Amino acid sequence: MSSTTISIPAPADFHVHLRDGNLAKLVTPHVAQGGISLAYVMPNLVPPVTTTERALAYKAELERIDPSITYLMTLYLSPELTPDEIRKAKAAGIAGVKSYPRGVTTNSDGGIESYEVYYPVFEVMQEVDMVLNLHGEIPSDAANNICVLNAEASFLPHLESLHKRFPRLRIVLEHATTRAAVEAVKRLGDTVACTITAHHLALTVDDWAGQAFHFCKPVAKFPDDRLALREVIAEGHPRFFLGSDSAPHPAHRKSTSSPSQACAAGVYTSPILLPLLAQLLESFGALDQLAGFAGAHGRRFYKQDLGQSHPTVKLNKGPKLVQESFSAQGETVIPFWAGKELDWYID
Amino acid sequence: MSSTTISIPAPADFHVHLRDGNLAKLVTPHVAQGGISLAYVMPNLVPPVTTTERALAYKAELERIDPSITYLMTLYLSPELTPDEIRKAKAAGIAGVKSYPRGVTTNSDGGIESYEVYYPVFEVMQEVDMVLNLHGEIPSDAANNICVLNAEASFLPHLESLHKRFPRLRIVLEHATTRAAVEAVKRLGDTVACTITAHHLALTVDDWAGQAFHFCKPVAKFPDDRLALREVIAEGHPRFFLGSDSAPHPAHRKSTSSPSQACAAGVYTSPILLPLLAQLLESFGALDQLAGFAGAHGRRFYKQDLGQSHPTVKLNKGPKLVQESFSAQGETVIPFWAGKELDWYID
Repeated sequence: MSSTTISIPAPADFHVHLRDGNLAKLVTPHVAQGGISLAYVMPNLVPPVTTTERALAYKAELERIDPSITYLMTLYLSPELTPDEIRKAKAAGIAGVKSYPRGVTTNSDGGIESYEVYYPVFEVMQEVDMVLNLHGEIPSDAANNICVLNAEASFLPHLESLHKRFPRLRIVLEHATTRAAVEAVKRLGDTVACTITAHHLALTVDDWAGQAFHFCKPVAKFPDDRLALREVIAEGHPRFFLGSDSAPHPAHRKSTSSPSQACAAGVYTSPILLPLLAQLLESFGALDQLAGFAGAHGRRFYKQDLGQSHPTVKLNKGPKLVQESFSAQGETVIPFWAGKELDWYID
Repeated sequence: MSSTTISIPAPADFHVHLRDGNLAKLVTPHVAQGGISLAYVMPNLVPPVTTTERALAYKAELERIDPSITYLMTLYLSPELTPDEIRKAKAAGIAGVKSYPRGVTTNSDGGIESYEVYYPVFEVMQEVDMVLNLHGEIPSDAANNICVLNAEASFLPHLESLHKRFPRLRIVLEHATTRAAVEAVKRLGDTVACTITAHHLALTVDDWAGQAFHFCKPVAKFPDDRLALREVIAEGHPRFFLGSDSAPHPAHRKSTSSPSQACAAGVYTSPILLPLLAQLLESFGALDQLAGFAGAHGRRFYKQDLGQSHPTVKLNKGPKLVQESFSAQGETVIPFWAGKELDWYID
């Protein structure tokens, strides 16, 4: 008999974009709407969040919008980030540092090109136990046959060598999309984990070919890659957990109406996150892993004992339409699966 | 010293979509505007062109719009197509038969799933010397890891076995996009040729990721695949020649403004075809192959001795902006490289 209700204690999303200003006011409340009570917040604002002071101000901004969520804050890896700043950040409760390869994704122009210059920073992060979050893609380079399809697989040797050099540094490979990435993370030690988005459990390259609303970075890959993501969740591997990479963009930046402008990369899942995951995991026979994938595994890796302070979310089986769009403050965003019916809803 | 003028005798496009009705009225004159005097016309209208009678009526419609072009007509491979119809088509001057895998591209819902049922048709085509044009992709099939990225490579065994069974049947693998396809065609006998589009010489997967106006089927692949297309042109291989697959769609069908609708597949190059090719071939050092690639090779394979009946086109080096759009008859189409500057123009 299949379940008709599921209870998920303190659901956590360990990779989410909440933006700032009016867009933050629109999208931050969607975190709770999607059933999540802990949000690990990305620092790629314009300009990026590179200091403890800005991260705390950003956290305060988010708490003003929705104080019900626990926000774990991150810094953007850049030459400004010193070992001293790491110690300061740790003392202030900043959880991690996010590394973006230059030019690969939204607001990543200030991203890194080589890790060696950051070794002193990583040393201190290892010492004080901060997490390094890696956007695991190398920049496209036609002369070397690198494009969006093999950018992640080509990054994996960098992950492995970083782990070898800093074996006690907790590293998260973010939004894995390939079988190669899943296998690499499994092979590495207990300090290396991996987030998986909801949409990469649904999409393959065929879905974003000609459909800008399914286009994100990293792009969804082959069906066999999607299968590897599904399999590692179904087996309940404790180092693989939810990071939605939910990435809202104003609707007009997702539409393609001109050949001179590409659309923004990002899929927006926050408002429907837990029901969407329930539906997807059920589709590949892994509904029993939802509580681990969307909560327990990530909280354990991040050492976030939420105790009784965050609610258990109850999902019910039953149809619910995904809203076509969300608008407020002069901003409009369009969610993943807009207008489609979900099989689960939050009580 | 680089050239400042080039002369191309009787440029020919051995794969072009001219549509019908008002869209045909808009786009057919662009063939000549792009410098082409021979158009090999695809039969994927709605409904598809499956009889000699319809092909001749379609040809008459195109000749009414622009009588300066030589139109080579094709039939759409389908169960309606009998060996007798092939003999009738040949007698009426129809040049070839186009095969579409079911569901792979525009108006291909009536396409084929297995070639064996067509063996009697292919026998007669071989006997009367009609050309078989293959859209060389197998349909996506997630259970077998087939998607738009490996659909062409997975088709190549079908090409090879067809050639083995019908060694005298002239076969054209259309719009090759992969190194695997180039190598397969080279390996096969003199009765197997291959068309290459202009846009696949320019694009890789990175260019259509999030940019619907660069989305077509087959999709552009890896940089190394593009390199293979460039290399086979640069070497002047006589069985590789221009088939633009220029595929106009109404502008609103190319824009993506909603997550519930994917955009139409196709890149529209007809109005700028020869100048665009000159620029691209020059960029990879193959400008000296333009006359062969965009004329002589294809005319030889198709046994089209145009004699003195078609003009030599003169290209001049010099900047010219690509028009943002073309409108007439209530239809609007947006060309490839709209608003960009080309390095060559037609005298």
